[in-house]
Formats: sequence, C-alpha cells, structure tokens
Amino acid sequence: MTIKAGVVGAAGYGGAELVRLLLGHPDFELKVITSNADAGQALSAVYPAFTGASDLVFTTHDDPALGDLDAVFLAVPHTAALAQVPGLLERGVSVFDLSADYRLSDPAVYEQWYDAKHTSPELLATRAFGLPELFAEDLARVAERHAAGEAVLVACAGCYPTATSLAAAPAVRMGLAAVQGPVVVDAISGVTGAGKSANARTHYCSADENLEAYNVCRHRHTPEIEQILDLPGRIVFTPHLAPLKRGLLSTVTIPLADDAPADLTAEELVARYRAFYEGRPFVHVLDAGAMPKTSSVVGTCACHVGLALDMRTRVIVATGAIDNLCKGAAGQAVQCANIVFGMDERRGLPSMACPV
Amino acid sequence: MTIKAGVVGAAGYGGAELVRLLLGHPDFELKVITSNADAGQALSAVYPAFTGASDLVFTTHDDPALGDLDAVFLAVPHTAALAQVPGLLERGVSVFDLSADYRLSDPAVYEQWYDAKHTSPELLATRAFGLPELFAEDLARVAERHAAGEAVLVACAGCYPTATSLAAAPAVRMGLAAVQGPVVVDAISGVTGAGKSANARTHYCSADENLEAYNVCRHRHTPEIEQILDLPGRIVFTPHLAPLKRGLLSTVTIPLADDAPADLTAEELVARYRAFYEGRPFVHVLDAGAMPKTSSVVGTCACHVGLALDMRTRVIVATGAIDNLCKGAAGQAVQCANIVFGMDERRGLPSMACPV
Amino acid sequence: MTIKAGVVGAAGYGGAELVRLLLGHPDFELKVITSNADAGQALSAVYPAFTGASDLVFTTHDDPALGDLDAVFLAVPHTAALAQVPGLLERGVSVFDLSADYRLSDPAVYEQWYDAKHTSPELLATRAFGLPELFAEDLARVAERHAAGEAVLVACAGCYPTATSLAAAPAVRMGLAAVQGPVVVDAISGVTGAGKSANARTHYCSADENLEAYNVCRHRHTPEIEQILDLPGRIVFTPHLAPLKRGLLSTVTIPLADDAPADLTAEELVARYRAFYEGRPFVHVLDAGAMPKTSSVVGTCACHVGLALDMRTRVIVATGAIDNLCKGAAGQAVQCANIVFGMDERRGLPSMACPV
Amino acid sequence: MTIKAGVVGAAGYGGAELVRLLLGHPDFELKVITSNADAGQALSAVYPAFTGASDLVFTTHDDPALGDLDAVFLAVPHTAALAQVPGLLERGVSVFDLSADYRLSDPAVYEQWYDAKHTSPELLATRAFGLPELFAEDLARVAERHAAGEAVLVACAGCYPTATSLAAAPAVRMGLAAVQGPVVVDAISGVTGAGKSANARTHYCSADENLEAYNVCRHRHTPEIEQILDLPGRIVFTPHLAPLKRGLLSTVTIPLADDAPADLTAEELVARYRAFYEGRPFVHVLDAGAMPKTSSVVGTCACHVGLALDMRTRVIVATGAIDNLCKGAAGQAVQCANIVFGMDERRGLPSMACPV
Repeated sequence: MTIKAGVVGAAGYGGAELVRLLLGHPDFELKVITSNADAGQALSAVYPAFTGASDLVFTTHDDPALGDLDAVFLAVPHTAALAQVPGLLERGVSVFDLSADYRLSDPAVYEQWYDAKHTSPELLATRAFGLPELFAEDLARVAERHAAGEAVLVACAGCYPTATSLAAAPAVRMGLAAVQGPVVVDAISGVTGAGKSANARTHYCSADENLEAYNVCRHRHTPEIEQILDLPGRIVFTPHLAPLKRGLLSTVTIPLADDAPADLTAEELVARYRAFYEGRPFVHVLDAGAMPKTSSVVGTCACHVGLALDMRTRVIVATGAIDNLCKGAAGQAVQCANIVFGMDERRGLPSMACPV
Repeated sequence: MTIKAGVVGAAGYGGAELVRLLLGHPDFELKVITSNADAGQALSAVYPAFTGASDLVFTTHDDPALGDLDAVFLAVPHTAALAQVPGLLERGVSVFDLSADYRLSDPAVYEQWYDAKHTSPELLATRAFGLPELFAEDLARVAERHAAGEAVLVACAGCYPTATSLAAAPAVRMGLAAVQGPVVVDAISGVTGAGKSANARTHYCSADENLEAYNVCRHRHTPEIEQILDLPGRIVFTPHLAPLKRGLLSTVTIPLADDAPADLTAEELVARYRAFYEGRPFVHVLDAGAMPKTSSVVGTCACHVGLALDMRTRVIVATGAIDNLCKGAAGQAVQCANIVFGMDERRGLPSMACPV
Repeated sequence: MTIKAGVVGAAGYGGAELVRLLLGHPDFELKVITSNADAGQALSAVYPAFTGASDLVFTTHDDPALGDLDAVFLAVPHTAALAQVPGLLERGVSVFDLSADYRLSDPAVYEQWYDAKHTSPELLATRAFGLPELFAEDLARVAERHAAGEAVLVACAGCYPTATSLAAAPAVRMGLAAVQGPVVVDAISGVTGAGKSANARTHYCSADENLEAYNVCRHRHTPEIEQILDLPGRIVFTPHLAPLKRGLLSTVTIPLADDAPADLTAEELVARYRAFYEGRPFVHVLDAGAMPKTSSVVGTCACHVGLALDMRTRVIVATGAIDNLCKGAAGQAVQCANIVFGMDERRGLPSMACPV
Repeated sequence: MTIKAGVVGAAGYGGAELVRLLLGHPDFELKVITSNADAGQALSAVYPAFTGASDLVFTTHDDPALGDLDAVFLAVPHTAALAQVPGLLERGVSVFDLSADYRLSDPAVYEQWYDAKHTSPELLATRAFGLPELFAEDLARVAERHAAGEAVLVACAGCYPTATSLAAAPAVRMGLAAVQGPVVVDAISGVTGAGKSANARTHYCSADENLEAYNVCRHRHTPEIEQILDLPGRIVFTPHLAPLKRGLLSTVTIPLADDAPADLTAEELVARYRAFYEGRPFVHVLDAGAMPKTSSVVGTCACHVGLALDMRTRVIVATGAIDNLCKGAAGQAVQCANIVFGMDERRGLPSMACPV
C-alpha cells in the first residue's frame, strides 16, 4: 500500500517527528511538508538529522498539493487546525490532528479553556479521539467509515493526557477510584514539550539545572484529562519542566474507592492492568514495585506504566512514562493512521528505545 | 568568636558542602574532617574545588580530636549517628546531626521505617528539630541551654521534608487544610540527593535524559513530613529523580478545609504566607501566579515558595524550591548552629545564587 | 537470509547497542547474549528499553552455544578478545571484534601501548580492519574468503579513530598534509564512551556540568589513528569528556603541505572530500563553512564531516561527528558484518537520527 | 572604602554576573544597573536569583547617574563600548570594559576582525589590558595613574583568551615554544558563552546532548590570543559548544622549541609554571598528569592549569579551565578593579567552587 501523506507544520518539533516517522514508514509516502516560517528551505537545512534521508523542501500551509493527498497530519497550534480541517475533509483528505481543536467533545469547554470560538463543532460528533488503547471502538468506527470511502478526522490526544490516562484509566474504569475528591496529577516534561520557539524559558541556560512547575491549575490539558477519565471537576493537574529533551512522566495519585477490595495487593493491581491492556502492543505494565524510566521509551511509541498501592493512605499511585513527541504526539498520530488505514497499529513505528 | 568545628562524613556530598560553608564562615574554624574511606587523603585531592582553599586531610570517624571541638556536624548514614552522638555530647561537644537518627520523636516510628533499633531514645526529648523557620522555639530553647554551658543536639530536617514543609506548613497551621483525606506530595530531586555512591542509578548514562519515581509510598521521609505538619497517616509522598545536580522542588496539593473562607484568593493566601514567614530571611514567598525555579536557590540557604489556589477543585497547590545540599542539608545545619551559638542565622551563609 | 548471531559482553554499553541493532536487523537472528556479571538475568531486566522486544537471558562468556553461530560480536575489554577469537574461528564462527586486540598490525606496538602480550599475532595478517569507508578492499578480501566458506575475523576500529580518520583521511591520502610536524587531534566524547562501570568519574554529579581532558598524550587510540592515517609518530591526541550520553566530535588540525595548491578553497576541498566518499552511504561531507552537530547522528551509523581551510595559518581543520556507540562501535561492526555476509552495508542500520 | 559602581548592560549574562559579584563585594556599592531592553523592570524580576538581595531597577544605558560613579563596568557588545567610554572617562569615571573594543592594540587589526571603525584609537595607548596574571605591570601603571586622580580604562580580556593564555603563556614566555608552525587551540565553552539571546542555537533542545565546533578559523578571539602570546599569525583557534551552562576549557598544543632542554620532564614543567605564577592567588597549576575540571572553578575567579609533555611528538599540551562568566568576564573585571582601586586582587571575589 502507498499512502500519500503530508505534514502541515512540519518544522515544529511535533511536525519534524512526524517527518521522521513517515520517512521511515514502509507504507506512507511523504509528499508535502509545510512551514510558513521555513518555506523554501530544504528539510535537511532546518534539521540536519535528515541529511541524506530526504530532498523535501518546505512549502507554505496553503500548498494546494495537500488536497491531493490521502492523509494529512496537522502539527499546528490550536485554532490553526480549525482553519484547515473542514477544507481538507471536503477534498477527501483524512486528517490526523495533533492540535487541541477537536479533542474536547463539548465546544463550550473548548471555548472556556482555549479562549477561542469553535468554528466547526459539527465535526466533533464524528471525529475519533486518537488514543487507541482507551478509545479502540471510536477508532474502529472511523476506520470502517474510511474503508467505505469517507475522509475522516482523528483528534489525537495530547502528551500529558496520554501518559496520565494510560496510567490512570484502568483503575478508574475498574471502579477502584473514590467517587469524589481530587485526583492529583503531577507530571514532568522534557523541554521539547515547550516547543521550538526560542524564548527566555527554552534558552538552554534557563532550562538546564532547573526544575519548575508552570501553568499550575490552569493548564489546558486539564479538561482533556477529565474528559478521558470521565472525572469532571476532579483533576488537579500540575505540569513541571525538567532538563531533558524528550520524555514525560505523569504521576497520578488516585484515592481508593471505599468499596475497593480490602485484600487488594499491588500484584493483583498489576495483573488487572495487564488484563486491561491485553493485546495492546505499546503499553507495558511493569512488575509491582518497579517504576518506569522515561529513557526506556525515548524515540518510541511505547508507554511504560508503574503501580504502587498504599493501604496506609488508601491510594493507588500510578505513573506513566512516554516520549512526549512520539507516543505523546507524532507516534500516536501515525498509530491512529495505521488503524484508520487498516494496518497493524505498530506498522513502521519504533518500539525499542536505545538501551542507553 | 572562633568556634572549633569538625565534620564527620566530610567526603560525602552533604559533608563536602558543610566543608565549603564552614571554610567560608567567619566564625567557625574547621579543624577536623573525617572519612573512613578517604582517610589520609587531602581534601583537595578528593574535591579539587577546594584547591588552594584548605590543607585539611581526612582522618577517620574515631579521630579523638573530635572531642576537643565546640561543634561537630554529622553527615553520616542513619544508625552511624546513633553510634557517635551520645559520646560527643558527654565530652561537651554540641552536635548538628544531618542523619535521620534523631528526627522522629517517636522511636517506634523510627524503628518501623528505618528497620533499626534506636539506642538512645532518651535524647529525643531534649534535642531540637533543626528546621528554624518552623521550630524556632525549639531551637531557642536549645540555644539557651547551650548558652548556659550545655552541649546540645540538633536533629536537622531532611531535604524533602524541608522543601515540603516550608511550602505546606503555613496553610496547615492556619487551618486551611481539610481535616481528612490524603495530602499529595510529589517532589523532584537532583542526583546529588542520591549520594556520592557510584552505582547503576547514579551513573551519568542512567540519570541523564531520564525521569523516574522511586521508593513510591515507602520513602523514609514520609513519617518525618507527617510529624512536622502534624498530619499522621495522610501524606502520600512520591519522590522523583531528574537530570540535574542540585535542586529539589516539592509540589504539595492540599485539599481546602470545608470552612476555608469562600472568598479566599491566591493574593490573600500569599499575604498570609508572607506574614507567617515575617522575619525569616531565607524564605521568599513569590507573588501569586509565580512559581519558583530551583536554579534561583542553588548554592544557597534560600527557599522559594509558590502558591496557587484552585476553587474549581478546592485545593491549594504549594511548591517549595531549595538546594537539597544547602538548605536541605549542610546549610540548614549551619543555620541551626548559628542560632545555637547566638549568631544571626544568616551568618556566613550564601543567600544569593548565580543569576545563570 | 538468517544469520545466527551472538554478542559476547552484551551487558556493556557497546554490547547492548549491538543487541539493539541485531534485534532490529531483518537478517540476523540474535540467539546468544553473554555477560559474566549479569548471567541468568533477563535482557529487559538489565535494560528496560528492551521490554517487550526480546525474551533473551544472559549466559556466561563460555556458553558453548556460541560455537554453533554464524557470527559472534565481541564487546569485551582488550585481552579478553585474545582469549576467545582463535577458538571461535576454529569452530567456524566469524568474529567481529570491537576490542582493540586485533586492530594494530604490529604486535610490538600493541604490547607497548596495551601492556599485554599478543597471543595470536598470526591472525593479524588475515584479519580485516573494520572501517569500511577507508579499508574497503580489506573487507572485500575477507568477504570473499567468507563466501568461500571460511570463518573470518574483522577488527573493528575504535570510536576516536573512526571519527578522526573519516575527517582526516581524505586530506592525508590526497597529499594535502605537510610531511612533518604534529597533527593535532582534540576530540570530545559523551560519557557512554567511558563505559558502564560506575565510578567516581562516571557518577552523574562528576560528569554533569563539567569538561575535562583525560589520558593526555597517552590514550591507546593514538597508535591506531597513526596506523590508519599512516602518520607514525605525528598524532597528538587529546580526548575530552563532556556532559552528554552519546556523541563524539573529533577536531583535526592538519598543517597544509608545502605543495598544496595555492588556490585551494574550502569549496574545492569539500568537493574533493565528496568525491573521495562517493558511494559511501554513511559519510556526509557538509557544505563549506558548516560544521557537524553530534546530535544529528545520534543512534545512527552516519558520520558528518565539516571542513575549514585557513590560508592565514596554512591548516585544514576537519571535524567528524559520530555516535560513539553506533558508528563508533556496534553499528560499524554490523556494517562490517553486512559486508562480510554479502549484504548492502546499510542493511538494518539506522541512518536517520531524531530531528530533536 | 565605598566605591560607587554601575553596570551597563546588566541584564546580559556577563552583566548579571557583575551584579552578583558587586552586590557581594564589601567595598563596592552598586548604584546603577542599565539595560535598554529591561529598563523599568526590577532586577529580581529578570533574575529571580536576586530575590531579597537587591531592590535595584534597570535604567537605560544613557542614565545620567552613570556620570556620578567612581567605576562603571561595561558589559555591552563591541562598538557599544566605543560609544560610551570616552564620555565616561571625561566625566572622571573609571571604566572596566568587558567588550572587545579596546583589547586589540592595533586598531587596524580591530577593524579587520570586527568589521567596524575604531572611533577612539588614542585611548589604546593608555588603557591597561585586563588580564592581571599576565599584564601586572600594565595594571600597576594604570593603578598609579588612578591613585593620582585620573579616570582610567581597563580593557578586560575575553573568555577564550584568558583560559588559553593562562595555560600557554608561561611556556611561550620561557622560550619553550617552537619559533614557527601553528599553535593549535581547541577550546570548549558552556552555553552561557553564547549569550542571553534566545535563538535556534541557544534553545535547550539544540544545545542539549550535542557537541559542535563553530566560527572555525574566524573567531574574533584569535587575534587577541595572538596579541597576548605574541604569536602573530600562528594561532589556529577552534571553539566548540558543549551542553553545560558555565565552564570553559582550552586545550593548547604547543610544539616544543628545538632548543628545549632534552631532559625536560612534566614535573619540571609544572615547577616552572608554578614559579611563573608565584604570588598569583587565582591560578593553580595542577600536579603533572592531573588535568583540570571546569566544575572545580564554576562561580569563581580561579583558573586551573594542567600540563602534559610528550617527547614522542615534541609538544606541550596545556589546558586551562575557567568559569567563562567569572574569571572569563565579570570576575576578571572586578579583579582588575580591585587592583586599580588599590585593594587585594581577591577582595570580594569567590575562589572556592561548590564541591559538587
């Protein structure tokens, strides 16, 4: 199969990671890469890691060639996707959107957190939410429509929601979480999560040898996590920045339900999680007592989950480690595209990190 | 004033930081540094940063010269302090203990978490707990006894408890915390916190470009935090390791009390915190909305505290940033010694980090 | 084709990188991994990056199963290869040796620099030197013998010699280097180059935020570089350690030959280098004025070369950037094996780094 | 003594380091800090490390208050100093200039390398070159004029020239260097050396886990090094960028003079260097065989020098480690000011780095 693909916003970090994955994918043929800022430049001039790998040159976001493709991946800021998605779908192009524009089911929530008007809320009913391990049926439904000839839209989950939800969803969906009270999500991201923009915060000398929390209680991934986990008004989300390039670790503290089994053990919890993720190749639940390292998943689409159970304070502490650019963005989008195009979800995706 | 001082365990990271601070202190004269592993070696051979600054040579922990000093700082693992403290006190030497041996008031709690028998529990009643901003009276009492000629013991607080408690204590003591339910402490430390021992975890290639949680729900600082904040059985403490040398950030999520003022604002909270820390030179409460950076306190005895208030989920998120080796260990010990010896608590202590 | 392969010393950094490459290679089947220290442990227990990728378990170096393989990769310290190579060859196993034992053509030079007796110097005449871009005929000869049924030995080049020689060899072989005087090689390596052993130097807190030179004028790669470039007694080699995991940059300052063309330009030099490396897929010579970044080659078998020409001081400054574990060790060994087994040298090898 | 001081360009990295040093100096009173970009902002808002340490607010470079000071430190780009120095001197203010504008004795060389017209070449004859260990008489002469009531100008040496020259000058001045042929200087700097400007190169994700050479054979410090060492046309200078904040290591390979003593040893060389630097408190020459670590001098005005002698290739390899912002910029300027104002050169300057 040869699927003609394009990346809009290909010069940003998420976009460049999409380029890496699509160039290495046996079934996608990357035809168009766009960047308004770098239009006219060769890919390898902007990212020397691509030297010898591709002769592609950036065009602008309005490149008409996008309309002739089978799949377009959007790696643009929110609201920029609103401007592109309807037109692409009309021209029969399926869209894998890495922005936040179509993630939230309720446009009112979008408008409240993103301070922007949603201009195509009618698409929310039919788009799939792109987090395959937790929304398999959603993606299957869309894949069916695509197989029937329809151009479809997948709104890929954000980086923090992905790691957080893969760590917490099994416990929540199995009824192990208390029915009220805050669920605390403290997550740490590498600096690629702050994007390619050079500013005081992303300067090496600001980020190096430093730890800080940011956007406390007002990060836009909060409502997305609440939606995925169906925990409205209960997520306290504090993101932190640490000095590394790629890697995201989310630590979720889930108060135990009053009716949780009194004899629940960490081992039993691990067994239940493993059953939950049966058949999902990218999620690995570690043995009880082991905690994941982000370095074990860098460059891959894998998510490692660690679990602790504390009967003293009656909580589950679940941690999820991903590569924010791969499983948290570009890799997940390609995983969704694999599913939509009827392939094995692993197709063309790295699953093994460098050992060191 | 010239106070004859010694450091036991001076070749470890906490000990070496004590050496740095004492060599730079106008009133302490560092006479003895011990290290069983490095005995016989020159200080500057082990730590070239001290080249030209001192001709001291390491002796062993049983160096009899320790008995002739005014103050000994213990930077040894737990149980090793148990073996030294009573003898030093008997010989009239005041002890500033950086280990955990005399921190917990209840020896039963010590024995449970540290898996060791407490051999001098009688000293717990009279020792001061070394966290000056929260236990000022305790230290004043001990300083008085010292002024009267007594050798005294200060059990200095641990690194995680220091950052966590300075961030959380004002809210808790002012009655703003809910009376039940978990208080979640997610903290991140630089690798100096893991100590000088070279092992698979402290290897550069393991720690670099990696994030991980460790000792989840079983870190020994848990009961210490519960004791300081008087929140027995309620602290869920998850420490994390990040790729930097010095720096510790603790993020504490405190559920609001039911009777917290309905019109409480972040600004009001900041004002209350500032009133709480009035007159304490090392703690700086940032403006509402600002969050501290660990790089702003590296090498100093300062603690920066940031506050957010979320009425949506009814929590306070308080973050505290310190240098784990300085305010979290050696600096705090010297601060306590300054108080015990009747000096300004800032005496000889760095309070200004490098700007970059 | 299925080639049964094994890695001796698979728990070290070079060995683990071999495991990564061989697990991902379509034609090699990795059957045996050995580590005396970790024997009995699962691969993924030692390197969690391999979770889900392999069920292999470490055996000891004397595992008899090694004798049944087609190819064994040796990632052991020098002298340990001396002990294994002759026996493996006798049993018909081709060997790709990453150690230094068979690199130096003259056993006297080996004995002088490595302070060890060479116990099988007779193999030096027939082994190939494993640096395909500079010793193509050598490898072709060995591949022919292998095709004829013989077990062969390839002594793979070291990391510093690889980057240094790929940067300098074209100039030297084209007669652009002065016929006397020192050729200065100042190279910088990431910490993986110091190996997996946890010690004072590889401790995160020693290596982080530090630069230092080491083994100045006595690093064992010196005679290897002199041999490759045929510059006996002229290489001044100073290696440096910098705070990163993977990556090696070698800067070579080559005094110009007296008879070098007076009108030589950097552009012309680049053109000559490109002609020299015509058809070699892993070496990329950058445009005049551009200098390579090690981050552009991490995880790959690529080498990027940058060139400057200074007529003011009459020197060429050539820099070579590689991943010390991949092109500088494991990747180069697999590249050699690809050639020996008659495949495209790129087979199964990553050539595209992460863009960021 | 209270010396009224100001820093022009105080928001840049060199300027902020000056602020740190002057705030901590017992004899300077910092009255004015200027930054055109940050004028009106509080110092601690731009650099939170100064929280609680100062209430200073940035003004613009044309602040008339500068004219009332005793000393002004200029931390501005080249040509900007040309615009300020004459006016300040006329108003009786002594100037310590960290820019390159008055370093080169020959304005023609300045104009060639800096591509700018020198507008006050008449000041070059009377300015001192600010590298106290190598230009003691120069500074003494200026200090005398200052003592006689004159406003004086010190052109402080650049970061690379400082580390390079302190490592190489004793050998060169003692006649140990060959009288012709290139002297190769390969130096590595942390990212603060690239300045505070946020751009593609200083972005954390570009600089982290990367090594690269830059400005090869055309860095503007080249003629400055040649001037200091009196080696016209012989310095091949290649600067490199490595992932750390502060720290600069210069490795200088000096071909031995034909008439160098045949029995010269590394130990003898060390002894000669130590004699050369007798009485200079900031330079430490390490034992033969030891090489300096930049982490040992971070935050201080110290320079550690390491030496190797290779009779095989007939070279001296000398390495110098400094903190580029302190000894390489702000610290050296304060050291010069101490001398000019008649104080001990160490006054108020940190000489002891953090041990870890």
